[in-house]
Amino acid sequence: MRTEFHQQLDAINSDLARMCELAGEAMQLATVGLLTVDLEAAERVLTELEVLSRMRREVDQAALAVLARQAPVASDLRVVVAAVHITSDADRMGGLAAHVARIVRLRHPDPVLPNDVVGQFTEMGNLAVDLAEDAASVIIDGDPVRASRIRDDDEAMNDMHRRLFTTVMSPAWSHGVPAAIDLVLLGRFYERFADHAVAIAARVLFRSTGDTTRDFGQ
Amino acid sequence: MRTEFHQQLDAINSDLARMCELAGEAMQLATVGLLTVDLEAAERVLTELEVLSRMRREVDQAALAVLARQAPVASDLRVVVAAVHITSDADRMGGLAAHVARIVRLRHPDPVLPNDVVGQFTEMGNLAVDLAEDAASVIIDGDPVRASRIRDDDEAMNDMHRRLFTTVMSPAWSHGVPAAIDLVLLGRFYERFADHAVAIAARVLFRSTGDTTRDFGQ
Repeated sequence: MRTEFHQQLDAINSDLARMCELAGEAMQLATVGLLTVDLEAAERVLTELEVLSRMRREVDQAALAVLARQAPVASDLRVVVAAVHITSDADRMGGLAAHVARIVRLRHPDPVLPNDVVGQFTEMGNLAVDLAEDAASVIIDGDPVRASRIRDDDEAMNDMHRRLFTTVMSPAWSHGVPAAIDLVLLGRFYERFADHAVAIAARVLFRSTGDTTRDFGQ
Repeated sequence: MRTEFHQQLDAINSDLARMCELAGEAMQLATVGLLTVDLEAAERVLTELEVLSRMRREVDQAALAVLARQAPVASDLRVVVAAVHITSDADRMGGLAAHVARIVRLRHPDPVLPNDVVGQFTEMGNLAVDLAEDAASVIIDGDPVRASRIRDDDEAMNDMHRRLFTTVMSPAWSHGVPAAIDLVLLGRFYERFADHAVAIAARVLFRSTGDTTRDFGQ
């Protein structure tokens, strides 16, 4: 039987996983807004992220309360310290989805994306959602298969990001400077989103091993 | 007389302040590299940041040790929790200086900056250094004057960042897409650097008041 203390840690982890899911849902919605020039989707991202920010404050408070009342040590302590980092990463993932939504809103009713990069952003959006879901799953069960898929998807995201640079920097680019800048910033938002999922996976690893030499990817 | 426990907290805070100073020195050196097309300066940034990353791991470990052995509560607990966030922010500030240095290295021997934006980046570099120094100072003494100067300098940085967008997106921009992209990314690195200094000031505030409603600016 789990003690009350371990039930508190379970509740924190379950909230952390939910935060990652919310960040993934926000990036999915922001990507829909981007791909289909959907202002309403973009606006909804910004509203729904308020839930994520509220959860962050609640989980941070819960973690502080556990530290103050239970004075955990060893791996239990690392779970709580990892938690306060993970709330920060998940909230930041939501913030990056908000950045995508804001660019959609800023350019509306014009599309942000020229047709020839819609496929690239579809793929980056799918990767981002997978990464957030895998991060949620790794938090709950530490599944090493999912953790290694996070690394692979992050690599794939970095490749997409580099490809985007090649596209907009090529002499064949015909959409001008403002469109190029939007694309480079969007690419960076998706790439940073992936980095935070990697950071979460590294935090989970630290939680069980105490290993701080892994790149936390920030 | 300070107890051994409070001496440990003082040592952590002193290391955090040093980390901010190192991040500021790295951004100063990266800006010198950028403004004077100095490859050696850019390379030195990358080497010197290893010290910052090592300090981050050491301070994170020291904070964990304090939590495990001393089980602090109330404001002492908040000092330690703030510390693990601040190491992350300061290390990330160093990472952003590294991003600037890498662009300098990538374009070398060509300059990254067209002449007409050298003044803007000189100013952004100065703001970044001031922000890092003020963050260091706020960590040590919580000086509200310095804390409010961080807010002002961050606002000034945001203005510079917006001005940069106006410059490169203007029809008068004559330096092409690749230069525009470099500038927008550089602008974002300086602006994010400032955001982390703001986050550090907010953490220091949380440390003394427990207030988590302030925007941690990530």
